[in-house]
Amino acid sequence: MKASKFYFKSRKKISQEEVAISAALLIKANFIERLTSGVYNFLPLGLRVIKRIEQIVREEMEAIGGQEILMALLNPRKNWEQTGRWGSFNALFKVQSRFGGWFALSPTHEEVITPMVKNFIHSYKDLPLYLFHISDKFRDEPRSKSGILRGKEFIMKDLYSFHQDEKDLDKYYNQVKKAYQRIFKRCGLKAFVVEASGGTFSDFSHEFQVITPAGEDIFYYCPSCKFCQNKEIISNTKKCPNCGHSLEELRGSEVGNIFKLKDKYSQAFDLKFRDKDGKSKNVLMGCYGIGISRLLGVIVEANYDQDGIIWPKEIAPFQYHLIRLLKGKVKEDKIIKKQADLLYDKMIKKGLEVFYDDRDDVSSGEKLVDADLLGFPWRIVVSEKTLKENSFEFKERKSRKAKLLKLKDFDKTVKAK
Amino acid sequence: MKASKFYFKSRKKISQEEVAISAALLIKANFIERLTSGVYNFLPLGLRVIKRIEQIVREEMEAIGGQEILMALLNPRKNWEQTGRWGSFNALFKVQSRFGGWFALSPTHEEVITPMVKNFIHSYKDLPLYLFHISDKFRDEPRSKSGILRGKEFIMKDLYSFHQDEKDLDKYYNQVKKAYQRIFKRCGLKAFVVEASGGTFSDFSHEFQVITPAGEDIFYYCPSCKFCQNKEIISNTKKCPNCGHSLEELRGSEVGNIFKLKDKYSQAFDLKFRDKDGKSKNVLMGCYGIGISRLLGVIVEANYDQDGIIWPKEIAPFQYHLIRLLKGKVKEDKIIKKQADLLYDKMIKKGLEVFYDDRDDVSSGEKLVDADLLGFPWRIVVSEKTLKENSFEFKERKSRKAKLLKLKDFDKTVKAK
Repeated sequence: MKASKFYFKSRKKISQEEVAISAALLIKANFIERLTSGVYNFLPLGLRVIKRIEQIVREEMEAIGGQEILMALLNPRKNWEQTGRWGSFNALFKVQSRFGGWFALSPTHEEVITPMVKNFIHSYKDLPLYLFHISDKFRDEPRSKSGILRGKEFIMKDLYSFHQDEKDLDKYYNQVKKAYQRIFKRCGLKAFVVEASGGTFSDFSHEFQVITPAGEDIFYYCPSCKFCQNKEIISNTKKCPNCGHSLEELRGSEVGNIFKLKDKYSQAFDLKFRDKDGKSKNVLMGCYGIGISRLLGVIVEANYDQDGIIWPKEIAPFQYHLIRLLKGKVKEDKIIKKQADLLYDKMIKKGLEVFYDDRDDVSSGEKLVDADLLGFPWRIVVSEKTLKENSFEFKERKSRKAKLLKLKDFDKTVKAK
Repeated sequence: MKASKFYFKSRKKISQEEVAISAALLIKANFIERLTSGVYNFLPLGLRVIKRIEQIVREEMEAIGGQEILMALLNPRKNWEQTGRWGSFNALFKVQSRFGGWFALSPTHEEVITPMVKNFIHSYKDLPLYLFHISDKFRDEPRSKSGILRGKEFIMKDLYSFHQDEKDLDKYYNQVKKAYQRIFKRCGLKAFVVEASGGTFSDFSHEFQVITPAGEDIFYYCPSCKFCQNKEIISNTKKCPNCGHSLEELRGSEVGNIFKLKDKYSQAFDLKFRDKDGKSKNVLMGCYGIGISRLLGVIVEANYDQDGIIWPKEIAPFQYHLIRLLKGKVKEDKIIKKQADLLYDKMIKKGLEVFYDDRDDVSSGEKLVDADLLGFPWRIVVSEKTLKENSFEFKERKSRKAKLLKLKDFDKTVKAK
């Protein structure tokens, strides 16, 4: 991709309302744009990362039997009344049609999926069933300072599972827990699995927490046996209830949660099945969420330095950032451009994901500053200086280690991983 | 994909409110599910087709320089007031936050994209620019009988182009027209390019109309010079204004439209650029829509028979429908299953998209009825009868031509196209 043709310009000034580091960096680097408080547009670079995250999530959901669907966002009021949440869900956006009826803008999809699967689940033979969807969600949050970490509109993956008994629910719950750990690892994050409140009908739910300075949650961690519990539910202790070791207090951003719903929603919608003996029973359910756009923010919160973002490799919008530094002299610049164009063509032919800063009206200093800000894993610089040595500069964004390598060695260094 | 593991059961009874053939067939075949009037969920089969359509659209948009973004659905009221459409857009859903502010649920995105690109477009060097997004849209339509052809919530691709002068706008407008023709052709549709009203500031816009019995639009077509004009704007004539030939009256479903906005929205949001001489001018805009979920419906309206859907090959959810017909006898069935499993494994290894009806609790008759209903391009049947001849049955859904082919010839017949 050539920068000169791409919807990219780094932003110098951003609104003072962007307090969260992640939102500020993503706006400066032209990944996202603020439409209003808690509502953001995803620009080409940001959407590339969102799609990478979605693809990782999709692969891991399909690996545990999940089938993808897409549920509507306008939900009939009666579905939400049936569970009692029309009145009790504070952050529910409600919208009235000009023809009189009311809709909820879905903040979660139990009220849609539970009645929906009634057309499918009749017998134990139809169970278990795992359905997920990736879509927008809406929550009428107070004006917040968290940028895309807590928006009024956000992208979420939610998986729902349906089971004939608790044993089967428990088994799948643990499979999802492992799938989530794979997802966060692939996104370049270390996520702690933290016990949290299970509500009124379950022992515990589990949250996945990533350590960040801006984290909204406090949890306790035992470095010896890896026990983790959210501050909200832990009993007043400084010792691990499992092994007695001293607990550490950590600050995290939640990137996912999993929850045993049991028969809460199947009761509300009369979702039953016939077991092997022909007896009618409530279906048991689990629900499992990952905030996709939130995850984009947390990844940045956990991966930046004073100069910009440092993208983990699997979700970086581009792997390589190729830069040509010009001198403003016709003859020299022609040679530099020719050499850089040649490397770009080579990389495209190899199928590498390269962002080529071919802009002529931007200074060398600005190009290098932009490269640090954008934070793609590998930077390749071609300049008069490198060409004097028949070389290019090859630098890793994360370690900031740079090497001057011979052009003749380009192919063996710059290749598909 | 094995049917026994898939979220699929054909529906016998569907709501009498589903008057549109496309909605009725798609619900019967378990592609979509009605949540409420004008609002549908996409089930695994339906979502597969939606993704195919989206991918075709995406490829053709990128081929003409489009860059993909994702804009928010909650739009601040002030953006809609700035264009005067907060009051004048009848089908606008309006939602109030519990904290007081109002949002529009976007039915189109001029009010978002125009102020957004002000951060990018400053000079003629930043033009032209082409941005598109694929996302949900909302329109508060009266209760309708059109199923997914006209919903309250629907999926749409909208492309917006930005230009320095009319010549450049006209040139791109024609490029989009050609890209649209490629898109509809790849979706298996013959679309007529019909002149329609250009509003108050343009001669014409263009609609893309597909002939269907259920079509909501009437247009006139000249079989000689291919002139097409919507009934709403044509002057009272039965002769082609171009060549004098008699016009035909046709009934169509609109699948796309393209529109020169000129400076309507750039004026409202003061979107200007500096031209080569340093003069400040209004940016000129075009907008280009395709209703993705509507297209799913129109494709069905244009491709079905008394037994079910007939998917065009490029967008079919699966290319092959493999069926094993059992006899209810242990020994014979074991042989049939073994042979069908073998073919399935072969096809998966070849990377073919196959839906394998391996269900044991469904009758042979029902399996064949389901295959016609689902309408994948090629059906492969393995039964006691075919195996007696060391054969399988190979049938094209569209032509309904069936052949009995030798198993030894399977590989050369059933292969990637």
